[in-house]
Amino acid sequence: MSRFFSAAVSDLDPYTPGEQPRGQNYIKLNTNESPFPPSPRVVEALTEEESRGLRLYSDPTCKDLVDAIAGYYGLQSGQVLAGNGSDENLAFAFRAFCGPERGVAFADITYGFYKVWARLWGIPARVIPLREDFTLHVDDYMDLHEHIVIANPNAPTGIPIPSSDIRRLLERDSERLVMVDEAYVDFGGESCVPLLAEYGNLLVVQTMSKSRSLAGARVGFALGSKELIADLNRVKYGFNPYNINRLSILAGKAAMEDRAYFEKCTGEIRRIRRWTEGELKSLGFTVLPSVSNFLFAASNRMEGGALYRALKKRGILVRWFDAPRINPFVRITVGAQEDMETLIRTLRELLEV
Amino acid sequence: MSRFFSAAVSDLDPYTPGEQPRGQNYIKLNTNESPFPPSPRVVEALTEEESRGLRLYSDPTCKDLVDAIAGYYGLQSGQVLAGNGSDENLAFAFRAFCGPERGVAFADITYGFYKVWARLWGIPARVIPLREDFTLHVDDYMDLHEHIVIANPNAPTGIPIPSSDIRRLLERDSERLVMVDEAYVDFGGESCVPLLAEYGNLLVVQTMSKSRSLAGARVGFALGSKELIADLNRVKYGFNPYNINRLSILAGKAAMEDRAYFEKCTGEIRRIRRWTEGELKSLGFTVLPSVSNFLFAASNRMEGGALYRALKKRGILVRWFDAPRINPFVRITVGAQEDMETLIRTLRELLEV
Repeated sequence: MSRFFSAAVSDLDPYTPGEQPRGQNYIKLNTNESPFPPSPRVVEALTEEESRGLRLYSDPTCKDLVDAIAGYYGLQSGQVLAGNGSDENLAFAFRAFCGPERGVAFADITYGFYKVWARLWGIPARVIPLREDFTLHVDDYMDLHEHIVIANPNAPTGIPIPSSDIRRLLERDSERLVMVDEAYVDFGGESCVPLLAEYGNLLVVQTMSKSRSLAGARVGFALGSKELIADLNRVKYGFNPYNINRLSILAGKAAMEDRAYFEKCTGEIRRIRRWTEGELKSLGFTVLPSVSNFLFAASNRMEGGALYRALKKRGILVRWFDAPRINPFVRITVGAQEDMETLIRTLRELLEV
Repeated sequence: MSRFFSAAVSDLDPYTPGEQPRGQNYIKLNTNESPFPPSPRVVEALTEEESRGLRLYSDPTCKDLVDAIAGYYGLQSGQVLAGNGSDENLAFAFRAFCGPERGVAFADITYGFYKVWARLWGIPARVIPLREDFTLHVDDYMDLHEHIVIANPNAPTGIPIPSSDIRRLLERDSERLVMVDEAYVDFGGESCVPLLAEYGNLLVVQTMSKSRSLAGARVGFALGSKELIADLNRVKYGFNPYNINRLSILAGKAAMEDRAYFEKCTGEIRRIRRWTEGELKSLGFTVLPSVSNFLFAASNRMEGGALYRALKKRGILVRWFDAPRINPFVRITVGAQEDMETLIRTLRELLEV
């Protein structure tokens, strides 16, 4: 920190994203990207004419994109905010809704960014441990004063909770907001989007990075009541109104409209996940019951850090979190079938099973 | 505001961006975009292959883009932060460097976002009036305790100050940061980038939105000491690490590398500005001495709001700020020669000169 860094954020402990290697040809199973390219409609939408059009600002309301998302979910456009990745949506939500008067509560093992945003905005955070088996019990959240953020399915475990659990939280206190981070919901989780019609204290955040193969376009979105979305827009227009570029607006819209391709890709990921999970178990791994596009797995022969390093040396990147409770595990993105076969073959050699 | 909106930001008064009309064919002279498409190298860089590559995250360090910017200015890469538009860079800078212990000072008439970011982050703001003739005198800032942000050339006036003035501020107090917003510097201003070698308390922010015809790609950058840039990265990684998408990284790099095209475009804008300024004066306008890609002009026959509305009705969008001191003026982007000729013809009819 330089001498100019403000004391107001001197305890900010930034998020560490997964490695994004340059130039080396890894099998990349570390940041939950899709092995499939985006919809052909995305590629068609990004014409040379649109590249020349970059001289003009993007639409700050992202209307075309927002309309496509609203149409997909049968919501009104005023119920949708598009963001520069779902990280931006979540950062805005933390700022809009949390503060000294009502902090935010989240699990000890979950998306690592929640605690970072709390620090960034000076929001009191309450950490609720997952149970011994890494499951989240909403009973542990029922009587909290804080707003609640839950990743469902959770990361990096992949374990889901039913939307009926979220409903119980919503019912309990209508003055308390429940923010459900559904980054991985499209691979088999149960979305809370249908609950939006009933509950004004629900905000759902999703991303196009995983199930719609657009990690590199940076498009996420938040869904909620018109009032909540207006609040988020207030923060957006207080931070960076032109938050999504022209090409990503086009890409996101095209991806959203190609439902058949989305279903094909997510179905394929589920199939490959099942196959990989079976293989990992046959190699002696403990594999948490994931409904995501990743598997959280611990070997009975090698600890997590050693496994991560050994795989990296052999050209396969997975993610290892050097943190209490979860350091025996590695998080493995569900990639293309042939990449998973290479992974399993490599693990078999490594572990001598 | 919903009942969930945090009291911590309830006084947030969001920025109002210029109109971005959809579907109607205006001559658009209201948001200082370039009339020229981005460099042909930008169009070449955005291939179908790169669109398919959107499945992968962008490089959070934006290395290729940062290296290109550093190369252009003869800086080290550690002295450059790339942002999702310069608005994001500035928002990060306000958060990193300002706080209750040292607020921020800026002019009463300047980029309207400075006061918004101060509110967003809870930073005390001191507003220093421009002189009667809309010039900024650094003497008015010399003894301030606050960090200082100066748009140079200023917006919406277009009036510059020499870098020797900034040097005086830098010299006066090495514990006080001077942030120079050079969004419009490429059209004839004097950049402070050469001062970076001498002063650790200088941060320069620029954008590719205007002089590099990339408003729709959202690429800005901050230049400073390695220590200041490390601080900004700390905030970036505490907010949204993957802040620039893959295609904008490519576009920004290509634009930065095409120096000849940049010089051709900015030279052309200066030529058209001179022509337009002369014509406006001959129509009885007061025109402030702009070195930007816009002219701030007040008619002796029609007040600013009426002029804005009359031009809009005739298919020409300019920007009018309904604010004290400047409401007689409209801000007119310097567009293509033929568009400026249409503007002047329309004004002649309107004003019956």
